Amino acid sequence: MILELAILNVVEDRAEEFEKAFAEARSIISSMPGFQSLELGRNLEHPKRYVLLVRWQTLEDHTVGFRQSPEYETWKSLLHHFYEPFPSVEHFEPILKA
Amino acid sequence: MILELAILNVVEDRAEEFEKAFAEARSIISSMPGFQSLELGRNLEHPKRYVLLVRWQTLEDHTVGFRQSPEYETWKSLLHHFYEPFPSVEHFEPILKA
Repeated sequence: MILELAILNVVEDRAEEFEKAFAEARSIISSMPGFQSLELGRNLEHPKRYVLLVRWQTLEDHTVGFRQSPEYETWKSLLHHFYEPFPSVEHFEPILKA
Repeated sequence: MILELAILNVVEDRAEEFEKAFAEARSIISSMPGFQSLELGRNLEHPKRYVLLVRWQTLEDHTVGFRQSPEYETWKSLLHHFYEPFPSVEHFEPILKA
């Protein structure tokens, strides 16, 4: 399992609209091969700031399977205009749990 | 539930030592009141970079219960010297899942 992590900063006054669009976009990503789970969290200290955690079976399920799919174009058109600055995405391999 | 998130950058050549110390420190945090789960992930693109995700019942379980406990002093002495720069910690409230 690979964890995709992105910190999302949403432009002023559009947080509510972003959350609605995300609820719609969720069905796109969750139907992709290799998708395992998704969690969106709202920052307690900075309410326009979010964390997106997506778990994929393999790295390529995200970087190739999802990002090069036609579905990604719909995902982008629903969400990418909310971000300022545009987020960087990182991938992590779980090594320890409790 | 509240998600604590920290990106941890470990000083050059000490990643292996850090992971061992973390495995030891894990039992400290996981015995604290309000602790729910912990996950440590290693960045695939930058192997000295980690993400720490800790789930707490409430924000205060982390900020007061853990950080003001005697156990936190042991946690610090095991781990804090590995970080460069010293990490900032953020808290998120989960709002959406899939």
